[in-house]
Formats: sequence, structure tokens, C-alpha cells
Amino acid sequence: MITFEDYLARLYKMKPNIYIGDELVGRDDPRLQGGQNIIKVTYDCAHSEEFEDLCVVTSHLTGKKINRFCHIHQSEDDLLKKQLMTRLLCHRVGGCIQRCMGCDALNALSVITYELDQALGTDHYERFKKYLEYFQENDLVASAAQTDAKGDRLKRPHEQEDPDQYLRVIETREDGIVVRGCKISITNTPYADELIVVPCRYMGPEDKDYAVSFALPTDWDGVKLLTRPANFRKSKHMEFPAGNFGDAETFIIFDDVFVPNDRIFLNGNGDPRQTAYAGFLALMFAHFHRHSYTGCKPALTEVIASAAALVAEYNGIEKTSHVQDKLSHLIGTAELVFAAGESSAKHSEKAPSGTQVPDEILTNAGRRLAGEMIYDEYKVLADLSGGLIATLPYEGSFFSEDVGELAMKYMKRNPRVKPENILRCFRGIEAFAVSEFAGLLQVAGLHGGGSPSMETITMMMRYDLEKLKNISKYLFGIKSKLKRYERPTVTPRKQLEKFRKAMKGKKLEK
Amino acid sequence: MITFEDYLARLYKMKPNIYIGDELVGRDDPRLQGGQNIIKVTYDCAHSEEFEDLCVVTSHLTGKKINRFCHIHQSEDDLLKKQLMTRLLCHRVGGCIQRCMGCDALNALSVITYELDQALGTDHYERFKKYLEYFQENDLVASAAQTDAKGDRLKRPHEQEDPDQYLRVIETREDGIVVRGCKISITNTPYADELIVVPCRYMGPEDKDYAVSFALPTDWDGVKLLTRPANFRKSKHMEFPAGNFGDAETFIIFDDVFVPNDRIFLNGNGDPRQTAYAGFLALMFAHFHRHSYTGCKPALTEVIASAAALVAEYNGIEKTSHVQDKLSHLIGTAELVFAAGESSAKHSEKAPSGTQVPDEILTNAGRRLAGEMIYDEYKVLADLSGGLIATLPYEGSFFSEDVGELAMKYMKRNPRVKPENILRCFRGIEAFAVSEFAGLLQVAGLHGGGSPSMETITMMMRYDLEKLKNISKYLFGIKSKLKRYERPTVTPRKQLEKFRKAMKGKKLEK
Amino acid sequence: MITFEDYLARLYKMKPNIYIGDELVGRDDPRLQGGQNIIKVTYDCAHSEEFEDLCVVTSHLTGKKINRFCHIHQSEDDLLKKQLMTRLLCHRVGGCIQRCMGCDALNALSVITYELDQALGTDHYERFKKYLEYFQENDLVASAAQTDAKGDRLKRPHEQEDPDQYLRVIETREDGIVVRGCKISITNTPYADELIVVPCRYMGPEDKDYAVSFALPTDWDGVKLLTRPANFRKSKHMEFPAGNFGDAETFIIFDDVFVPNDRIFLNGNGDPRQTAYAGFLALMFAHFHRHSYTGCKPALTEVIASAAALVAEYNGIEKTSHVQDKLSHLIGTAELVFAAGESSAKHSEKAPSGTQVPDEILTNAGRRLAGEMIYDEYKVLADLSGGLIATLPYEGSFFSEDVGELAMKYMKRNPRVKPENILRCFRGIEAFAVSEFAGLLQVAGLHGGGSPSMETITMMMRYDLEKLKNISKYLFGIKSKLKRYERPTVTPRKQLEKFRKAMKGKKLEK
Amino acid sequence: MITFEDYLARLYKMKPNIYIGDELVGRDDPRLQGGQNIIKVTYDCAHSEEFEDLCVVTSHLTGKKINRFCHIHQSEDDLLKKQLMTRLLCHRVGGCIQRCMGCDALNALSVITYELDQALGTDHYERFKKYLEYFQENDLVASAAQTDAKGDRLKRPHEQEDPDQYLRVIETREDGIVVRGCKISITNTPYADELIVVPCRYMGPEDKDYAVSFALPTDWDGVKLLTRPANFRKSKHMEFPAGNFGDAETFIIFDDVFVPNDRIFLNGNGDPRQTAYAGFLALMFAHFHRHSYTGCKPALTEVIASAAALVAEYNGIEKTSHVQDKLSHLIGTAELVFAAGESSAKHSEKAPSGTQVPDEILTNAGRRLAGEMIYDEYKVLADLSGGLIATLPYEGSFFSEDVGELAMKYMKRNPRVKPENILRCFRGIEAFAVSEFAGLLQVAGLHGGGSPSMETITMMMRYDLEKLKNISKYLFGIKSKLKRYERPTVTPRKQLEKFRKAMKGKKLEK
Repeated sequence: MITFEDYLARLYKMKPNIYIGDELVGRDDPRLQGGQNIIKVTYDCAHSEEFEDLCVVTSHLTGKKINRFCHIHQSEDDLLKKQLMTRLLCHRVGGCIQRCMGCDALNALSVITYELDQALGTDHYERFKKYLEYFQENDLVASAAQTDAKGDRLKRPHEQEDPDQYLRVIETREDGIVVRGCKISITNTPYADELIVVPCRYMGPEDKDYAVSFALPTDWDGVKLLTRPANFRKSKHMEFPAGNFGDAETFIIFDDVFVPNDRIFLNGNGDPRQTAYAGFLALMFAHFHRHSYTGCKPALTEVIASAAALVAEYNGIEKTSHVQDKLSHLIGTAELVFAAGESSAKHSEKAPSGTQVPDEILTNAGRRLAGEMIYDEYKVLADLSGGLIATLPYEGSFFSEDVGELAMKYMKRNPRVKPENILRCFRGIEAFAVSEFAGLLQVAGLHGGGSPSMETITMMMRYDLEKLKNISKYLFGIKSKLKRYERPTVTPRKQLEKFRKAMKGKKLEK
Repeated sequence: MITFEDYLARLYKMKPNIYIGDELVGRDDPRLQGGQNIIKVTYDCAHSEEFEDLCVVTSHLTGKKINRFCHIHQSEDDLLKKQLMTRLLCHRVGGCIQRCMGCDALNALSVITYELDQALGTDHYERFKKYLEYFQENDLVASAAQTDAKGDRLKRPHEQEDPDQYLRVIETREDGIVVRGCKISITNTPYADELIVVPCRYMGPEDKDYAVSFALPTDWDGVKLLTRPANFRKSKHMEFPAGNFGDAETFIIFDDVFVPNDRIFLNGNGDPRQTAYAGFLALMFAHFHRHSYTGCKPALTEVIASAAALVAEYNGIEKTSHVQDKLSHLIGTAELVFAAGESSAKHSEKAPSGTQVPDEILTNAGRRLAGEMIYDEYKVLADLSGGLIATLPYEGSFFSEDVGELAMKYMKRNPRVKPENILRCFRGIEAFAVSEFAGLLQVAGLHGGGSPSMETITMMMRYDLEKLKNISKYLFGIKSKLKRYERPTVTPRKQLEKFRKAMKGKKLEK
Repeated sequence: MITFEDYLARLYKMKPNIYIGDELVGRDDPRLQGGQNIIKVTYDCAHSEEFEDLCVVTSHLTGKKINRFCHIHQSEDDLLKKQLMTRLLCHRVGGCIQRCMGCDALNALSVITYELDQALGTDHYERFKKYLEYFQENDLVASAAQTDAKGDRLKRPHEQEDPDQYLRVIETREDGIVVRGCKISITNTPYADELIVVPCRYMGPEDKDYAVSFALPTDWDGVKLLTRPANFRKSKHMEFPAGNFGDAETFIIFDDVFVPNDRIFLNGNGDPRQTAYAGFLALMFAHFHRHSYTGCKPALTEVIASAAALVAEYNGIEKTSHVQDKLSHLIGTAELVFAAGESSAKHSEKAPSGTQVPDEILTNAGRRLAGEMIYDEYKVLADLSGGLIATLPYEGSFFSEDVGELAMKYMKRNPRVKPENILRCFRGIEAFAVSEFAGLLQVAGLHGGGSPSMETITMMMRYDLEKLKNISKYLFGIKSKLKRYERPTVTPRKQLEKFRKAMKGKKLEK
Repeated sequence: MITFEDYLARLYKMKPNIYIGDELVGRDDPRLQGGQNIIKVTYDCAHSEEFEDLCVVTSHLTGKKINRFCHIHQSEDDLLKKQLMTRLLCHRVGGCIQRCMGCDALNALSVITYELDQALGTDHYERFKKYLEYFQENDLVASAAQTDAKGDRLKRPHEQEDPDQYLRVIETREDGIVVRGCKISITNTPYADELIVVPCRYMGPEDKDYAVSFALPTDWDGVKLLTRPANFRKSKHMEFPAGNFGDAETFIIFDDVFVPNDRIFLNGNGDPRQTAYAGFLALMFAHFHRHSYTGCKPALTEVIASAAALVAEYNGIEKTSHVQDKLSHLIGTAELVFAAGESSAKHSEKAPSGTQVPDEILTNAGRRLAGEMIYDEYKVLADLSGGLIATLPYEGSFFSEDVGELAMKYMKRNPRVKPENILRCFRGIEAFAVSEFAGLLQVAGLHGGGSPSMETITMMMRYDLEKLKNISKYLFGIKSKLKRYERPTVTPRKQLEKFRKAMKGKKLEK
């Protein structure tokens, strides 16, 4: 395991391929510091006594101690610890910890590459294991790129007028492939070491060129990062840890990029049989990522609840029944979403690769609840804060020679609290609720890892309504087969088995 | 373990003390059959291969096989099995299984009687264990009576103009106590063997006469049951299992009732020190009962979802996206509430008595979600059914010589479904959504085990907001002590310890 | 204008064609009295000083005083008065006043029959006016029958396997037509004088036999009423006006029924050109009916709010902030729905026939809000009442010699209120929230006059999104034509004009 | 009436008293331009043919044509036109038109100053009329300052430890008064001509020094503006009208400011009798302001709906039923809030001064609905847009020589729409939903003109629950006085009458 300093040194050696507006900038651009400071927490905590039990784990591959963000979950306990680690670290940065996506992509790949080999007799899993070993050894940070530009949303990839709207293989060579396309809305890429690319949807046979997955360093030739940073406003005059944090979202353009063989995990262009697994990989990544959300989203809700409770105290309204009611609903949402993740772990199953896969119904139900509530949570925060979070004079006014003292005088509220702390509280909430970054947090809270409607679709794909109907058929006297009821869900394992059977005997034609 | 027939025979021997309207009726009154048929399921399943693993358990007291409804939970697994048993049995009766309340009261009493002895040097726990052994041996059904008439809701028990508005001890004798009062809104009493009485709120020192808990046979002298039965409409012409079920709610009047010593579990009148434990017992019963709701409420939601899915199929709209969305939200609520119960078990702790106590934050958050959604669930059911569930001609019309054939002709909907089944489906939903019993199910869904606002209060009593605030204080640069975050909840165990210390050295003055 | 006694006498003379279950009953069946008592209010109020200004109006046809329920709206003021009358009368009966549907059907027919003549050169309007004169002269009560059995909901009328699933003309003769089919979920028919039949959807050219509208006496040959009555439970011992009211819903079977020419208002079988107007008539009836809902639904909400406020007072919680908040939201919904109706009147327009037609966007938005909130309103009522509304002993217990006094003793709550009144209050809410009739009120509140989803569809049919988009196009710098913004709605008048043009030159081929 | 250029010239002559951070800036600071550009629309439209009928009105004082923003409403029609003008102008600026608050303050003062004179025999109304004439003549823009710093929210003004936490008169002199305090969260002050100060709450006799209202130029001696500007991000490469707009919120510090007599409208320090009118003035200003919100909030909802409809089209999902449903609910909210304002006008009444006062129940119900829905509206916008609105590369990337072409290639979506327009659409929504200004719009949507809880309180103050209860009392057989129901609301006029009586004979003691 390395340190944040090692990570940063490694990062700063990368070639510049980041555009902010029309500027080409290096990885040391100050606008990228906020995100790097969040990654810092994932390194620091692994070296801390306080979090070691959660953040450090023994690799099932090498037996060495590794950062949990590089780990393939082997048990229910791994899932529970990952979930708890995510929650705790998110508290420290006031939001997304930004390193889970790489971990989620690795876990998904572990399942699918193993499966590819079993079903098709290929050697993806060996390749993946080598990559994983390298990843764990170097304690890498990965960005996972899933969402394509997608062009005309009513058309499938191969039907697009411009065939590049989904990332695709334009050539399979002896030594690798060449890809073209664009992945959008990708978090953390400018300060990640690696970029793991996965498909964003099911692919039919005609979409075979789009069934592709691979990993590359983020500064690889032809990879162009069009980045939009968003940072909390820093503080000049007061300590303000939140002010150190930020984010960067990226349009990743693959301008005819070569990917060497040892970094390819799926390639429908070279082997059309693999096309069938694109959707599975897409969903499996989304699934692990949504399970991560059952850790981070409760944390974000708790950050909001914490700020809401604090400002309610400072405003002197903490004990009123409507405030207690609102706080308790924020807490309730956090607890329920986390419980959904815990029960997902309890009802998890082992994939054939040995990777532990959470329950899909519960994970999706939990993630969806979080997404559906996010705007309401901001409403509660604004409600308990009052208008001042959007109208507070800039920090400088409170430290101005001319008017600073007067300004501070009028920050008094709860007489047991110093005006300076009241100012800190309102500036903090301003950052979290009235800023460009806050807007991003809202949108990410809704869409990140899949929108509520995607979770609904996934749930209903996995849920067996016919079995559910048996309950009322029995009660209403309609002939049916109500046995002892089990949660009527189709598990990934069963799905994989079905796939494997369907693949039986499919040979790759040269 | 006994059979339903044994139970019924025992019941029918009881003295008549039930009033329906102004009629004094026996326990064989047909209006009480619906409820008895629900209890039947709890006996039958214990004798069935299908449910034995859930419904039968080994008594920690006697080592004998007993019905789980008579059991004191000894482990996380006991809590999980109780929750699952509740869910499965509720599916069979289309709603409340009606036998959990006795079990919940016993569990609460096991904790509190043990604690009384530890803190005050009394012998309640021995007495309770004898009662429990008798209870388990005879496989009894108990009604738990908590809610008092309460009179003026702005006044505490001892402040009431009419001192009987909360049930109270009017005399402590050598051989027992005499009680007076009325417990309202009590389910199942006319077909329960035993009545377990617990307080419904915290009691201050001046309320000592109201700090009382005991058990009695339901036909005991002076106990008068003013009962309101509600049954699904039975079917003459079609098989309709739901039509067998019903409920009875009771105003239980204690008209100066003598309770012998061996059936007294709390008595502030005789020993004012015990008064302090009234609130604890009240909350502990509510807590076990709310945890039971994390089993039954998901089941009721699934019954509604099942009927909604069925009628959507029969109406031919099952595949439309708004229907899928609505069904998936019903399913999501059921899953989340159940997950809350499972996580409550995972985060449960042992009380000093050895009884396993679920986590309070999660149990209350889960129960509250269920309560808050219940009316919305009926709305979805009505939405997908259409108006016919409220306007369907009576069954007789469909079997009338004159018009039956014509009536049935116009029940055609989905051509793959026989009109008779469509009729069954609409009659079933009519019963569940447009009947006096349906109204009861709605109100019970909201208030049973405590209204959402009671759960909010309980949650906020147990949750430590100061620790939560540390998250934002840390982020905003306000001095605080953010250590590794733990769910900031005060557990019953810690509460009991505090109580025990406070009691130290308090002697009973004779 | 006649009296209730006249109405009843007329009714009782009708031939028995009502089936309750398999019983053939007369119009004097006591189970039909509840509904008749509601109709009574519409007669009584027209003769009362208190309501005369609202309930009595001058016929534009004859210049005579008539009951407003028989009137064709001629002005904005007529619409406003109809809306207010509906609200006030509904307060008196605690729900639906049941006579508006006839009025709504007449108004819709006035628009469409006029239009038919203008577009096609027919004489429907004269026929309609004669019928209207007869209707007004005799102060008739009409039932409007719109919803067909509909069979397979995925198929249009002519595509059904059983062609009778939508009511249809099976023969056009010299002197009239013969119809067959079934209209379901129809309110009030067993105690209405007349039955006005309108189509329930758009009809394409192949559906011409289904494009039919006419009026008949409710006891006409071949008309069979399969009725499901629902009444509030009556009171024996206490005055309980609500106990007098009830409802009856009917499956109306048309068993090959002859309709004479002078009662036919639309007939696509005899004149296929008329088919195009079926949908218009369907929507126009729904529209007038939904505007009526902006009068009755606020009243129902106010009944609920009134009961909620009363029980909150009796429970002693009236002044708490959460109760005030909940009451004020009930009131807010009532006010907003009524305001939508008033603004609909303000933005109404005259149809070519002279009939005043409310604004469709506002009417639908208002009706939808009411429908979407109805279950939530019952939730609030149950919330403020507590569980007792579902568990209250029957009235008899409170007047029993044995236990009546004791029972009443425990009804004490707010010390300023007599226990008898507390009992009245809980019995009243029990009737409104926990009874078969309550279930009907919920379902009718959701679906009556069209479900929220129907209102959404209607709104979006009428709303011109392209014009709305101009606002953001302008702000975002996208070329567009933002002129002064007008509510981008297509009015019925414009629709009718378009139709009339399309019909130009279409001759009836013999 | 003057032009925007006149206004700007006048503004630029003002003394610098604006602090942004610790910088003292002039009114020509570019960060203030966004707000000035919004005010521009109010001048331009008054000179445009398109809006003249709404924006120009005849002064009841001088008979001259004036800008409606300077007008005292004289009729229902005035209220309706103000509401419609507000809606239309807000469409043009994509949000708050920022000039209504001055108008609302003037209208409130017209009512109260008249009333003061009638009740107390003072000459406030004459003074006010002179000020009004000057205001109308010079076509001034006013900022209205209501919210005080408020210090400890659990204490009333005179109870505060620091007596300056509410603005107060520290001295009444011959020629005027001296005031000290701070008004917070005030919109538009740095580019307003005048500042009108009103109290923010009821004042008791001991709060007399706080019962003060007056007007001053915004650059008056001792007035210090601590300003926080927020502007949409401007566009370099594309036309982007929204980019011209912005806002400025201000902490206004009154550092011992002298107010001359002719600009004082209320002064409890000089005349304690006037103290009673502070609360009335506070509420009357809030009331007119909330009625303005029934014009602007529908517009903001329509801006959001417009953008949502546009992006749905560009994303190709416009016709799906869930999108139609969401859009139609946005439209419904806009229509219902506007209808509430229209009905408020319909049920308005004349104050004794001749000023037309809208209905309070309806105004508050409408404003509250808007406030309660605002976060949900942003959720819908984010939902239909997808994550790109928060992750879009900066404009420069799309016009970069290196990567611009590639970036634009991947903006393709709906093939009928040019990528440039898709970019415009996403940039526009980014501005409206993911920016500091967007955060302000959310908070202002919730709190501006009073939070939902303030509207609830106002509604319940005005609503007569006892009359409402009569409905259910009548139905339940409880003795009551149900007459013909009227909306049970206490109007301002009745309130004023009560006040006037209470004041009778109260002389000012010298």
C-alpha cells in the first residue's frame, strides 16, 4: 500500500491530456486539487489505526495486505465492510469518496471474465487476474467509464447515423484493438491512474463492435479528457475542511485509441460470441456500484442531516416537533438505505468466480429510495436553515476593516454559540446547498449509479411477479401454486447458468 | 403443542362475557369465527412440514418444542425467524396474523421482570417464568392490552378528573390486587386464552397506581369485552379463502377485577419503586411489537402488490411502464421494511435477562415507513383496479337465474382469463379495499403498534443528535470530536444500566 | 319545479327491474333509501330560501324557473353558481350529491347535438331541445351512463372477440334503434328517472355501431339494473343525519333494448358520419363532469377536514403545530381545487350552441389534484382520530343496560365535551372512514369523473408544448418565436371548428 | 415613465456604499449587471407595444400613465393584471423580475398609513401620498427590506441581549429619527433607487422602538450594503440571453442612520400607539408579496417545464408516458398556483384606503403549493435531462481548436436537432439547475415571500375552524349552527375594523 504522496508523485508524472475549457492543463492544476484531496482520504485512512480494520484487507489473490478499494469481495463480511467503509469515509469528505467505482468495475470484471472463460473457453480471467495483481500491488485509483454519448436515444448502437456514438472497436489486430468513441459524465478521471471501460447497455448480435471492455492509463495516447471541475469555495480567513474538496467530471474522448491485448476484457469485434456478455457486464458493474451507493448515500444524507441539526440548534428551533420530525425522516432514510445494503449482503450469493454478489432487489430498492429522496433532503436543509444560506455576504465582508465587525455582530443567533461558528455553519451549508458543486451533488444523488427509473427496471427484470400473484390467487380462490413463499427473485447466478447453457457449443469461427 | 381443535374446545368452555352491541354472546358466535380462523393458521402451520422450521422452536426454559409464538427470543436468528414466520403466515390470511402481540408482551415482560429483580431485589422473574412455562405448555393465545381510555389527553394519569381513565390498582391485598379501568382498541381478545396487560406510557411517581402489569384469562370475573367484529364477506357460490377471515376489536372494561399475586408483573401501588419501570415496559412491548410489524407489514404490502399485479394482468395493463413503476414501489416498500427488521436483528443486543432485543432506530424507521405508505398502497390498488371494485354487483347477481349469465358475460377482460376468475379477483379486491374490514386494515396499518409520530418520537429519544452534528462541525471547521462515526444510538441495554444505577439503594418502605 | 314527494311518488310507480344480488326489488327497497335521501336535498334546497339563489335558475329555453340541475350553462356566472351549489349541497350530505351527472350529460349533448346539425345538416339539436324541455318541465333526475364493460382493454370496440363489450346499435329501424351492451359503475340509476347514455371513448370509422347516445326511462323494457347499494350504518339511539344517506352503483345491462327516434342523440350505425363525434361527446361529458368535481371534491375534502378538526378538538390536540399543519393542507387542497374551477369559469368560452364551456387545462388540473390527494386525506383523518374509529364498539353497547354506562364512562376525552358527543364524533368518522361506503368514497374520489391519469392525458392533449418550449428556447439562445406568452391551450371551440371543416361536404349515403 | 438608460444613469451617480467581500465597489461593478439587466426588462416592456396594456396603468393619484410596478391596486382587474404581468415578465428573465417587492411595500403602506390616520388622527397618509407621487413621477425601483437579523430566535425584539438584532429607532428628533440595525437576505438593493423598510413581525408594547417603517435612497449616509451577487455564467461563443441575468442579495447595515420626517411611515418610538400596527404592516406587505408570487412562481415553474420539455425532446423521450406525466404535473402546479392568485383577486376586497386586497386563504394556499413543490420541480428537470447538465465540459472545450469538433460530435442526440442547439439546451439547464444562482433560485422558491410554514400559520390565523366544524357536527348529529356555508375566513378589512375600535380614544401622550 502506498501513501497519498506516492500517488500524487505518480500522477504528476502523467502526460497532459486534460482540457478545462480550451486550456490544456497538467494534473497539478489547482482546480483538480479538490478531487485529489478526496482521494487522499482513501490513502490516509488505510494507514490510520482508526480505519485500518475497514480499509485494509488481505488479497485473495496474493495474500498481501491491500487497500479495500482494490479488493474483490469474497464474503458477506467483505460486502458489509465495504459498505461501512464507504459510509465512514464519505462522512469525512462530505460526499462522494470517488474511489469506489474502480473497485466496482473490478468486481464486475472478476465475475464476467471468469464466466467468459467457462462458457467460451477463452483466457480472460487469467488476463484479468494479472491486471488485478498489478492494480493491487500499485494501490491504483481507477475511474470507471460506462456512459456513452449515446446519440439518438431511440436507436441501438449499430443503428446510429454516426456509428461512434457508442464507443466501439474499429479494428482488432494481432496485438490489440483500436477503439473510438466518447464516454460522458465520468467522475475523477483527471486524477485517476487507470481508466476501466465497460459497456453501458445490452448489445444484440449486430452491436458486436460495441461489446468491449478494457483498461488503460488515463494519459494514454489518444485519450482526451474534457474536464469540468467543481470545488467548494475555499476559505481565506477561517478553517474550513470542506473547502479542500472538489470533483471533476469528464467527457472522455477516445480518438482512435490502441488497447494492447493484456488490457482487453471483452471484445465482441474479435469474438462475436462475447457480445452476449456486454449487457451482463453493464448490469453487474451497475449492481456493484449501486451497492456502493447503499454506503455513500446514507452518508450524504447524514451529512445533510448533521448540517440541518446543527443549523436548527444555531437557529434555536431544534426542539420543535416539526424540526424533530424532519430530522428523523432524514435519519430514517439513511438508516433504511443502509439496511437495504446490509440485507443485500445477507442475501448475497457467490458467483462462480468466487466473487460475492449482493442481492439485486434490495440493492436497487435501497439505491432508488436514496435517489428519490435527494431533492427532498436539500429542501429540508434549506427549510431549517432559512434564506441566509443563499444570501450570506462573502467571507471577506466579515473580515473587512470597514464593516467586518458590524457584519459579525449581526450573525448572532443562539446565544450559546459564537457568531464565528454561526458564520462557519452558514458558509458550510451555503457550500453544500447553494453552489455549483451542490448542484452536482443533487444531480449525482439522483442519477449516479443509475437513475431511479433504471433501478425500477432492474428490479422488475429480476422480480418474478407470477410468484407474487400466487398470494392473492390463493386468497381469492383462483387455482394457483402457493407454496411457502420465497422472495420471488431471479439471482445473477441463475442468470449466468442460463447464459452458460445457451453458449454451449458456440465456437469462435476464425 | 396443541391443535386448533384443542384450542377451540378450550375457548368454547369459557364463560360468556362478550358484548356485540347490546347482545351478550358466547365464543361460538359466528361473527367471531373469522378471527378464530386466523388463529387456526398459527396452529396448523406449526404442525405442517412446510413451516415447521419457522413455527416450532425449542424453549430455552424447558427444552421442549413449542410454538414460536410462545417463545422468548434468544438470538439474532430467533428474531430473523420470527420476522420471516410472521411474513409468511400473514400471506396466508391476507393480513394480520393476530397472535404476535402475546409473544411481544411476553418478551417485553421477560426483560423487565428480570430487571426489576436485579434492581430492586424482588422475585418477579421467577413468577414470570412460571407463567411462561404454563403458557408454553398449554400453547396459549394471548391478547396484549396496552392502550388505555386515556380521558383528557393533555393530562397525565393522576391528573385526570376521572381517575379511572387509565387502568389502575385500587387496592393491594395480601393475595393480589384489584384493578379498575378500560383498555381500548384491543385486537383478538374474544378468542384469546389470556389477556396480558401492560402500561401505555411513562409514569411519574404520582402515577404509581397506574404502573401495573398482569395477566388474566379472558373470561375472568369482572372483565367485560365490548367487541366489534369485522369479517370479510363470505362467498356462497365460489371458493373464497379470504372470506373465512376476520377480526374483532375490543373495549376491555375492568370492572373492579381481582388479580392474584402469581399473575402480577408490575405493581407501583404495592411497591412505588416499580413505577419507574412502567414506561420502560410500555416501550419495550411497543418495540417488540414494532419489530413484529417489520414482518407483517411487508406481507400486507405484498398482498396488496399481489392483488394489484393480478388485476393489472386481468385488465391487460401489466406491462405498461406506469404499472410496473407502481408495482415496483409496492415491492420496494415491502423489501425495505423487511430489510429494516433484518438489520434490526443484525444490530440487536442481549438484554441482561438473555432476551434478544432488536435495534430501536431501525425497527422504528422500518415500521414508520410501512405506516406512512399504507394509504398510498391502497391508492395504487384502487388505481390499477379501476372503479369496479367499489361498484361490483353482489355475488348473487352473477349466479341469478334471470341475469347471471348476462352479468358474467360482461366480466370479460383479458381474453386469456376466465370471467369467473376475473369476478373472483374483483370480489377479492373489493373485500380488501372496499369493506369495513378494509377500513380497519387501513387504520391498523397506520396506527397499529404505534403511529408514525410515535415512531418518530421513539427514534429521536434514542438517537444522539450531538454525535451526528460532529460530522458537519468537522467539515465546517467548528471544534468538535469527530471520531470514527458510529450510529449514534442509545441502546436499551445502556438505558437499563442507567436505570439500575438510579435504583441502587432504593428500599421498599413498608 | 316539483317536490321530493312528487319525485318519490313518480319513482315508486316504475316497473321493478332492479336486482340486488339475485333478488328482484322495487324502488321502495330500504337499501335504496340512502340514495333517495341525497336526491331529496336537491329538491328541498330549490324550495328553500337559503339556497334558492343558487339552486333555481331561469331556463334559457322556456324562461321558466327550473332547478339548476336541469340547466344548460349560459354564462361564466352559471358555471360559478353550479360549482358553488355543488359544494354547498355536498356539505349537507357528506359527499356526492349524485344529481350533477345528468346535468353534465345534458350540457355535453347541447354542445354536440348543435354541432352535428351544423356540420352534417341533421336535426339533432331540435330533438335534444324537446327532450330538454320535457326534462326541465318535469324536474327530472338523470343518471348518466358512460363506462362500458370494455372487455379486452387492449382492443378497440370493433376488435373485441365479443362485440357487445361496448354498447352498440345492433339495428337501425324506421322508428328507432336497438341497442345491446352493458354500462358499468353507474351511480344513482335505481332512483333516477332517466338514463342518459354516452360513449366512453373515441371511435374510429370501424367502430361506427358503437357511436351512440340516447336517453331512456330507467325502467324501460330490456334495461336491467344489477345494483350494489352502500349505506352509512343507521343510528338507533342517537340523531345521526349522515346515517340517512347512501348510494347505489349499478351494472346496467341493455338486453336488446329499443330506443325510439326522439330519444336518440347520436347514431353512427344509421349515419356513419356521426361516428367522428363520439369521442368529442365522451370528452365533453367528462369535461363538464370534472368541472362539477371542482365543486364536490372541495366539499368532500372540507367534510374530512371538518371531521378531522372536530376530532382533534375532542382529542385535545387541535392546537399542536402538526395538527394545524395537516388541517391547513386539507383546507389548502379544497381551496386550490375550487379555485381551479373558478378560474376554469373565468377562462371559459361559449360553444357555438351557446353553452358555456369551462377551461380544460384548469378543470383537469383541479380535478386531478383532488383525485391524487384523496387517500392522503383519509390518512390525515385516521391520523388525527386515532385507532378508535376502527375499533369502536357498536352503538348498542353504549346503550346496553349491562354495560352502557361503563362504556360511556370511557368515552371521555376533552373535558369540555360530553361523552355522548365524543361518541357521535367517533361514530361519524367511523362511518366516513371505516365502512363499505367509505371504501366507495375513496375509490370514487380517485376514479369518479376520470382517474388522475385520464386528466393527465386530457391536459396534454389540449396543451401546446411547442409554445411552452419557446420560453426556454428564447432564454437559451435557440431560434424560436417567443411572442407574448399565452396559456398554450387548444380550446374545445377551436377543436370543433377543425372538426366542422373536416366534415364539410360529407354526405350521408343512403 | 423613464427608460432603462435614464435609470442606469441615475444609478451610476450614487455614492459607493456596496461591499462585495471586502471590496468597496460602485454600482457599475460588472457583478451587478445581471440584476440591472433584469430591471431593464421592466422598463423596456412598459415602452413596448406587446406589453403596454399590462405594464402601463393610470395613476389613481395623478391620472398620469405610470409603470404598473409603481401603482396602488384599485380593483380586481388591477390585481389580475399585476399577476399576469409578473408571469409574463418572469418568462423573459427566466425567474424573479425583482421589481415587485417595491410595489408590494407601497401597497401595504397605502393601507396602513391610511388606517393609522383614521385610528389615531395622524397624517401618515398624506406623507405617504407625497412619497408615492414622487415615486411614480420618477419611475423608481425600490427594494423592500423586511427580514431583521433577529438574533436569538426564541426571544422577542426587546428581550434580545443585543438590542440591535431587530432594526430600531434609537432616537426620535424634531426633524426625524435615527435607526440602527440590519436587514438581511434583501434582493436587488445595490441597483434599486429606494429602500423601503418594514417590520418583520408583530410587536408588543415593549417592542415599540422596533415598530418602524420608512424609505431612503439606497446610498444614504450610514446605509452599508454587504452584497453577494450571483449571475448565470455568460457565454463567449454562443448567444445566451439567460447569461445576461443575475441577482444580488444584501445584508443592509443601518449604522445609526438618520431618516427625515417626510420619509417615516411608522414610528412606535415617537408614538407608542403606532406599535400595534407593526404586525399588520408586516403581514400586509407579506400578503401583497405572496400574491405577487402567484404570478412569478407559475412563471418559474413554466420556465422549468419548458426546459424539461425541450430537453425531453432533444433526448428523444418526449412522448413516453412518464415524461408526459411529469411535464403535466409541472404545468398543473403552475396553473393551480396562478388560479389561486386569480381566485384571490376574485374574492379580494377594498381596504378603507381604497387599495384592493387579495384573499388571504387563497393567496397563501397558492404560494405555499409553489414553495412546497420547488425542489421537486428541479428533480423533474434533472430527471428528464440526465446527468450531463452537471458534467458538461465548459463552453471553451466545444470551441477549442484541438478538441472542439470532437466535443461537438458527441453532443448529437435527437437527429432532428443540431448539436449546437443541444449544447445550448444543456448549457441553459446547467445554468438553471447546477450553479450558485440555481441554488439561490431553489432557496428563494422555498423561502421567498415567506416559507410554507409561514403561509400555513397565516392561513390558520385567518381561517375560522369553528365554522368548518359545523359541517361535521351537522352530519354527526351534534348540536351546531350550520347555516349556508361560507368560506370561513376573517378578512383584513374585518381585522382593521377590530383594530380601529381597540384604538378608539387612545391619545398620544407627550
